[in-house]
Amino acid sequence: MNTIDALDNVGLLSLNQYTTRRWSVREAAEGCARAGLRYIGLWRDKVAKTGLAESARICKDNGLTVSSLCRGGMFPAASEPQRRTNIDDNRRAIEECVELGSSTLVLVCGGLAGCAIDDARRMVREGIAAILPYASERGVRLGIEPLHPMFAADRSVISMLGQALDMAEEIDPSRVGVIVDVYHVWWDPDLFAQIERARGRIYGFHVSDWLVPPPDVLLGRGMMGDGVIEIRRIRAAVQASGYSGPIECEIFNRDIWAMPEDEVLALMKQRYLEHC
Amino acid sequence: MNTIDALDNVGLLSLNQYTTRRWSVREAAEGCARAGLRYIGLWRDKVAKTGLAESARICKDNGLTVSSLCRGGMFPAASEPQRRTNIDDNRRAIEECVELGSSTLVLVCGGLAGCAIDDARRMVREGIAAILPYASERGVRLGIEPLHPMFAADRSVISMLGQALDMAEEIDPSRVGVIVDVYHVWWDPDLFAQIERARGRIYGFHVSDWLVPPPDVLLGRGMMGDGVIEIRRIRAAVQASGYSGPIECEIFNRDIWAMPEDEVLALMKQRYLEHC
Repeated sequence: MNTIDALDNVGLLSLNQYTTRRWSVREAAEGCARAGLRYIGLWRDKVAKTGLAESARICKDNGLTVSSLCRGGMFPAASEPQRRTNIDDNRRAIEECVELGSSTLVLVCGGLAGCAIDDARRMVREGIAAILPYASERGVRLGIEPLHPMFAADRSVISMLGQALDMAEEIDPSRVGVIVDVYHVWWDPDLFAQIERARGRIYGFHVSDWLVPPPDVLLGRGMMGDGVIEIRRIRAAVQASGYSGPIECEIFNRDIWAMPEDEVLALMKQRYLEHC
Repeated sequence: MNTIDALDNVGLLSLNQYTTRRWSVREAAEGCARAGLRYIGLWRDKVAKTGLAESARICKDNGLTVSSLCRGGMFPAASEPQRRTNIDDNRRAIEECVELGSSTLVLVCGGLAGCAIDDARRMVREGIAAILPYASERGVRLGIEPLHPMFAADRSVISMLGQALDMAEEIDPSRVGVIVDVYHVWWDPDLFAQIERARGRIYGFHVSDWLVPPPDVLLGRGMMGDGVIEIRRIRAAVQASGYSGPIECEIFNRDIWAMPEDEVLALMKQRYLEHC
């Protein structure tokens, strides 16, 4: 494969900026440009540090489209005032998507937050319903990202793709979709049926790998090819279900965070071509 | 509540011996007797160290019924000879159940073992089918224990209660049941419907708690009451679904393993009464 083919084949690859955690928005955007990438996935804490308008300008100057903004969500709360605060924060996240040109807000829906699990799930549904009109008016899509069940208590009471689709359908299936992250869903016995069911409603696709044994609960993700996930099979199913957007590489892992970032991007591109 | 009531109320409580990991079969059995327990859950590695006949005698001498033997399963393997070896090992586990008077063999079905996930799941189904006649002839029930999805790669490709019931039905629903362990299934959005579906086919019930954040992937279980699982609600559902057998407390946690074992048993009894 020559360089032009390789570049073309990584054309959908997006760096989720937490894969290079130490980098600022500027460093990440310039790194992506050096690596020939066209997409970047941003995080709100990083954007806040650089400034919203400045982050948008930096991405534009480096020829990058923002594939998604992480994260909205975190709806459950033990008190009504806190729930309203969380919903207000989601409105700000939607505005940030507009400013950054990101078509999608990733929803990490929130954990128990001291509530019973049924109540927490109801708060998620009500929270998404509350922000949906605001998102729709601004042309921002809401993507529910089911998180691995090991995060059910503290990050997302939405754990499975089918559960996310059920919730999207209860709210508005034409305007609420899902984010498929292989790390979170690879083990699901109903995965491929649910990906098919999600036709037209997949708003994002994330890749990494599941290491064996996992070195950590939160920071245990591996580079594609270092673990056991059938990434290519899942990618094929997601694309067969109509998704043609960017493919974000999102890895939380101390060893990768300790690598020189340009090397991380080179490795990511190589592994993407080999395993995704 | 007076002492006699309390003793009566812990009448279903069983010590899974890995909760007191340092203890031998004899130490655990004598500890259970001191604590007024009637049941113990044994592990094969511990039984092998003490000797099978000796372990059976010790339990009997201490007035204990063996609530279950852990573990059979581990069916997937990359080679046919290894698969046959694994099946032979399950036959030995069944014989050990007979000798120990345990009505149930707990099946931890096995991880990927280098196989594609669909193949690994097929090997589990074929493995259970292969040992079922042997188990039935000897009056030993096979209980599929779905393990938390974070163990899908290395311990069990059977992750959900519904998936376990599907598999049991494919093989023989009158002779293959499930083990419900709150730690593994509490997050399942379909949990209560699946418990109801499992009527008459629940062969064991395990309790512990989910700590937030989990201190470890493998050794992160907590004592009942220290985490977020709605244990009492799940217990009520399991009993409403016809299960009336022992309730095993199974905790893998370094802090608990470091405690004096008699204190662990006293705490377990107290927390069982308060939270289960």
